[in-house]
Parts: sequence; structure tokens; C-alpha cells
Amino acid sequence: MAELTGNLLVAQSGGPTAVINASVAGVITEAGKHECIEEIYGGQNGILGILNEQLIDINDEKRSTIEGLKYTPAAALGTCRYKIDFKKKPEKAAQDMDRLFAVFAAHNIRYFFYAGGNDSQDTSHKIHEEAVKRGYDMRVIGVPKTIDNDLPHTDNCPGYGSVIKFNAATVMEVGFDVSSMATDDGSCCIIEVMGRSAGWIAAGTVLAKRGVDANPPHIILLPELPFDEASFLAKVKETVAAYKYCIVVVGEGIKDKNGNEVGADKTRLDSFGHPVLAGAAEKLKEIVQGKMNLKTRTVLLGYSQRAAAHFASATDAKNAFAAGEAAVRAAVDGKSGYMVKIVRTTATNGAVTWSTDLQPLADIANVEHFIPKDWISADGFLPNEKFVEYAKPLVEGETKVPTEGGLPKYIVMEKVAVEKKLAPRA
Amino acid sequence: MAELTGNLLVAQSGGPTAVINASVAGVITEAGKHECIEEIYGGQNGILGILNEQLIDINDEKRSTIEGLKYTPAAALGTCRYKIDFKKKPEKAAQDMDRLFAVFAAHNIRYFFYAGGNDSQDTSHKIHEEAVKRGYDMRVIGVPKTIDNDLPHTDNCPGYGSVIKFNAATVMEVGFDVSSMATDDGSCCIIEVMGRSAGWIAAGTVLAKRGVDANPPHIILLPELPFDEASFLAKVKETVAAYKYCIVVVGEGIKDKNGNEVGADKTRLDSFGHPVLAGAAEKLKEIVQGKMNLKTRTVLLGYSQRAAAHFASATDAKNAFAAGEAAVRAAVDGKSGYMVKIVRTTATNGAVTWSTDLQPLADIANVEHFIPKDWISADGFLPNEKFVEYAKPLVEGETKVPTEGGLPKYIVMEKVAVEKKLAPRA
Repeated sequence: MAELTGNLLVAQSGGPTAVINASVAGVITEAGKHECIEEIYGGQNGILGILNEQLIDINDEKRSTIEGLKYTPAAALGTCRYKIDFKKKPEKAAQDMDRLFAVFAAHNIRYFFYAGGNDSQDTSHKIHEEAVKRGYDMRVIGVPKTIDNDLPHTDNCPGYGSVIKFNAATVMEVGFDVSSMATDDGSCCIIEVMGRSAGWIAAGTVLAKRGVDANPPHIILLPELPFDEASFLAKVKETVAAYKYCIVVVGEGIKDKNGNEVGADKTRLDSFGHPVLAGAAEKLKEIVQGKMNLKTRTVLLGYSQRAAAHFASATDAKNAFAAGEAAVRAAVDGKSGYMVKIVRTTATNGAVTWSTDLQPLADIANVEHFIPKDWISADGFLPNEKFVEYAKPLVEGETKVPTEGGLPKYIVMEKVAVEKKLAPRA
Repeated sequence: MAELTGNLLVAQSGGPTAVINASVAGVITEAGKHECIEEIYGGQNGILGILNEQLIDINDEKRSTIEGLKYTPAAALGTCRYKIDFKKKPEKAAQDMDRLFAVFAAHNIRYFFYAGGNDSQDTSHKIHEEAVKRGYDMRVIGVPKTIDNDLPHTDNCPGYGSVIKFNAATVMEVGFDVSSMATDDGSCCIIEVMGRSAGWIAAGTVLAKRGVDANPPHIILLPELPFDEASFLAKVKETVAAYKYCIVVVGEGIKDKNGNEVGADKTRLDSFGHPVLAGAAEKLKEIVQGKMNLKTRTVLLGYSQRAAAHFASATDAKNAFAAGEAAVRAAVDGKSGYMVKIVRTTATNGAVTWSTDLQPLADIANVEHFIPKDWISADGFLPNEKFVEYAKPLVEGETKVPTEGGLPKYIVMEKVAVEKKLAPRA
């Protein structure tokens, strides 16, 4: 493969994570080692910013800023949820592609790296195919990122290990709190975590049990399994009888057997006609308190869980960084149209080591990876040993976050704009 | 004052904190230095357990367990919300006092330390007065503890520094997350924190701003100030116009000008007739989304905030430990009927050092300490520089928490029961 000389563009997409910036740091660090890569640009707010020719010059960032990307949460370059939708909006999509390639050509972008989840890998795949079709010489590699852990082929998705590490620690801590207040009447705490269709995040909190049945969480409700009120209440009752308290973790997207989201109250609309979303935990609280008269409190971690870089997984951050490095190496090596995947190797003594490999983007795009059925207990209320064996290595180690005045010292990029060369987007 | 020889009893009361166990560690550590203190007992679940003669023998705990109390959240001895209520239930209260002193006498308790908030200091005060009245030679010292920071006379309440450190870090992290997704339409995130009547906890998140106006939180709603929907919406609008996103922190107990809790929906009752509490953040989300059509998400930290020992304040933990030590020193020195208070000394160069002193329990009990009015900005939406100057030193430093398998390694006490000597409580 002939050497390809030109500029590099890296961008981030979709929901932020605690380690998506570590992948960008990996891309930048590796790019610095290759002469064929001339300028290093960042795309602001993903594809959306690139369409608007909003590029920033990474060379204007301080070395310490690049270092700080390894532990700074959220998308330092900005992110978006913009989708180039060839199916529903083919004309708009074709226009977008023309514009994207105009931007690429104007700035001699020959290396493009996009960190994101399912939709973003799909975008990368389309850009790769388009480059081939147009005969525009460019290497496109997807970098996996999603707390949802639902990308196929990769052992795990960078971002996932950190979210379950923080959430499991939170479940432990809330468990200590609630159990220390436990009275004969009992009490219940329901912790809602992210995960609209896949239950990986909720399932990951099982690590808080550390192999002890009595430890929380006592019940984990996965969006994959239909919620059944009667068996849930029976399980809460049984748990409170045994331990005087019950910690429930619920994935935000749990549905009843008819497929209706438990947390959505269709009977109440706001003035714009949106249904009022009470949230799954609030709804479960109403059920437990209303039907069992059991004191119940809720915790809704929301965005805090995926941004909790102050207690991120060092394993996760290292894999995220390595994925960025591997993407650049693959591209320089002539590859295009692949996603980097994380590969686990387990030694006979159980020690886990991590490496990366490549998977064609065509295998990734729009495929959702769910928890294997045989990783969940028979009653559906807890993931089993197979899941624990999978998840445990992902939370190992703590990233080192500097503090200032007792608070994390995260970095903010300078974001010096690259001069625009095109007319504004139509 | 004659030396008093006998046994020590320490107990915990009210809502747990990240550092209440550090105070117990301080009591135990200091007690070991004094010959006049023979056995060291812990009361399970506060006064309630003591009434039931549920004492545990601290000498049966491992040294590493006592060390671990310094960083383990929640009440390791168990806690309660039991109140000896002389006003409303004088007969029951008199019975309780008789029983308490029967337990004290049966176990030769001569030193009693109770870590708690307003109600608990009131209990300690009554026990002290009763001991004097009965001529039972016992030293009673209260140890301050409450995340609410509403005890008078003490500079701050151990537990408070840790909750605002974690909450401020969370606001920073959520701010990074939301701002990195910010679009031209804007977005809003509302973070609900504890604090039913005093706004200290909500106010403390102002530290996340680190002196920069543009940084979150952009609006803090304190329970002390009546909530006004119109001015709130105007402020959200102004913030989104300036920064494309808005982070709001709300104390759970905010009320409208008629004194009705914003988070309580009196129109909906559960089957036991309890009003359904949507929570302040959910209610504000309905208002923002429903009246501004602005994408809004919520975070409800709940118990997780006061239990987040994985990111506790070293300053707070040290003060909590020191308060326990000081309580024992004061008692051995002949004092009774006091609460330990935390004292701040600020050098001319601004450096803060901490010490302890004593305040009569009579001055403490049932007095609630609110944020001074002149520590809040004119529009009421943010605490000002005076508050920041007060709060900043409280979050300094991080406690060292050991981890195992990537999760905090907290301790659990053995709780070997002291043999009961009395008939069960009537």
C-alpha cells in the first residue's frame, strides 16, 4: 500500500463517556509518530461541525491538555446526534456527503477517525464507502465508544467499564447507607441507571455484590426482560424479610409485557403534548410504596454516571487510549473501513490482558449486541457468574485525576479554529 | 474533678454521612489512651438499640476495622431516628429514660458519646440533665454530624464538607457532559440534592464554578427562598441564550411563596393515601420542558451523595475524627453536657487551620442554623463570594480509600454482642 500523506481529522459523536477523550488522546499521540500525517485537526460537535467546516487545530493545544484528555470526561471536541440518513432522507444525505467531501478536500483530510456508538460506526462506514466510490484517497477507521456496551464483535466498548465501576461503587455505598438505617419495618431504595434497550449498565452493578448474596443489589431489572409487577413485589418482600432492606437497580428502559415503558405515564401530557416521563425508578417507588407500604427512596444517576471520571476505570481508560492509537496505526498501514475492537486474552491463571484488532465496519453498523440469555439467572433478577466473570476485569484500576482545591482538575481545549476555505453550508 | 473510672458507650444517630464513622474511630482511638476508660462499647442503631440493650464489644473488632472506619461511609454501628419526646409523649419519654439509665448502670457506662444532628444533640442534652438529676456519675458529650450543616455554633458539621465535595464534582462532570452536547436549541439539566429546610448542600455546589461565571451551576435554588416560576424561567432562558445550556441545582425542599413544597403533588395519592412526591427536579423539568420546550434531563443524587466516601473530603474526615477524639478528652477531663464544635482559624495569608472546642448542649439542641442572608446574591440564584470563602476549605484533600477489584474496600464490623444483663424492654 502506497504511503498516503495528508491531514488527520478526529471527531466524537453520540452520548459522552468518562473516557471518550482518552481515545482522542490516543489518536493524537499516535499521529505524532507518523511523518505522513501532517496537520492534526479536530471536528467540533462531530459530523455536524464538520459539515459546518468547524475544525480546530490540535497543534495549538498545550501538551498538558492532550495529557489531560486521558482523564477528562465528556466530549472535549463536542459531540452531536446528527445522522446521515440515506433511508429516510436520501436527498439530504446525498447533499451532506457532497459537503463532507468538499470539507475533506478543502483541508486535504486523508485520515478520518470517528469515535462513537452504533450510529457513528454507520456514519464512518458510509463515509468510507463514499470515499471509495468517489476515488478520494482517505482512510476511515471507527473508534468504539458507548457506555451502553452494545457494539458487536468488540469484547467491550470503552466507556462501559467506567460507568459500571462508578455505578457499582454507588450501589455499594447506597447499600451501606440504607442497611445502616434498616428498621424492622424495612426499607427499599431504587437506583435508576441508563440503558434504554440493552441492560449492560444495570447488569454491571452486580459487581457490587462481590460474590455475597446478602450484598446489594438484590434485584436488577433489565430492559431486555418484560417487567412483571407481581413477581417483582414478591422478590422485594422476600429480600426485606431476609435483610430488612432491599436495593433495586433498574435500567431506565424497562417495559411491561406489552412493550410499554414502565417510566412513561401516557395519561399525563405537558402543554406541548409530550407524555410526562416519571422515570422507571419513580414509577417503581409508587408501586412498592403504594402496594407494600414500604418506605422507598430513589436515586436517578442520569448524566452523572457516564461523566464520573473522578472514579473511572484505569482498564477502560487504557483500552480507550489504545483504541485511538490502533486506529491511527491501522490507517497509516493502509486500512480503511474498519472499527477497532477490544480483544481480551485470559491466561490459564485467569489473568486478563487486552489488545486491539480490526473488524469491518460493515459488520458493526446498526447491529445491537445484547446480554447473552445464559448470563442471566433463571428468575431474571440477577446476572449470573458468567456475567460477573466478563465484567469484573473491566473495572480494575483507578485513573489518576489531579485535583485543585479539592475538585477534579479537568482540561478544557483552546479550540483554535482552522481557517475556513468554503462558503457556508447551504 | 475526680477521675471517673468505667465503661464507654458510643452510638450514632440520624441520617448517615461519609465520615460519621471517622468520628467513632476518633472516640475509640482516644479512649484507648485513657486508663480510666475500661470497656469500649458501641450502641447498635443509636438510642433505640441502647434501649434494647443491644451493645457490641469494640474490643472484639480488628485493628484494621477501626482504621477502616476512617473511610467507610454510613453508620457502621447502625443508626435510628428515634426521639425521646418529653413534650408530646412525656410518659413514654420518662419510661425511656428509666430504661436508658438501667442499661447504663447495668453496664457501668460512665462515658457516653452520641454522634448526630439536632435531634441527637437534644437527646444527649436530656441524658446529661437526667444523669445530673439522678446523681448518676456519667460524662455525656455530643459529637456533631450532619450533611445538612445546620447545627449552630460549630464552624461546620462533619459530613457536610464531603457531601458538597462530591456534589460539586458531580455538577462539574455533568456540566462537561451537557455542554459537550450543547446545540443551538440549548438544553437544561436539573440536579436535585438533599436539604429539606436549609440550603447549605445546594449552595455548596457553587464551588463547581471555580470563580468562572460561565461554569455550572448556573442557578441554585435554595429551600430558604420562595420559588418563583417566572423569574426562574427567565433566568434559564438568559443562561441558555448565553451558554447554550443551563445546569440547575435544586435543594429537595424548595417551596412556593405559599410554603407548599414544589416537589409534592397533592392531587395524586397512593393507595395508602400518601401524596405522590415527584420530587423538586422532576417538577422543575415539567415546568422547563412544558413551558419553554427546552430539552431537560434530571439527576437525583439521593442517598448516593451522603454515602460517596470514594470521593470524600480529607479535611472533613480529619475534622470528624478530631471531633471524636476531642469528645473523649473533654469527658476524661471532667466535662459533660457539651457538644464538640469545629473551629476555623484563618491566617493572614488565608491558610485555614482547624481545631475543636466545646459548646454547652443547651445552646445547640433544636436550633437550626441557616445560610446568612448576605451570603446569597441579590437575585437569590447563587451564593456569593462570602459563601465561597466559607465553603472552599471544607472540600480540600481526598481521603485515601483502598480498593479491591476496582471497587472501594469498605469495612463491616463484627458486632460481637455484649451479654445482656436486663430483662427485655417492656
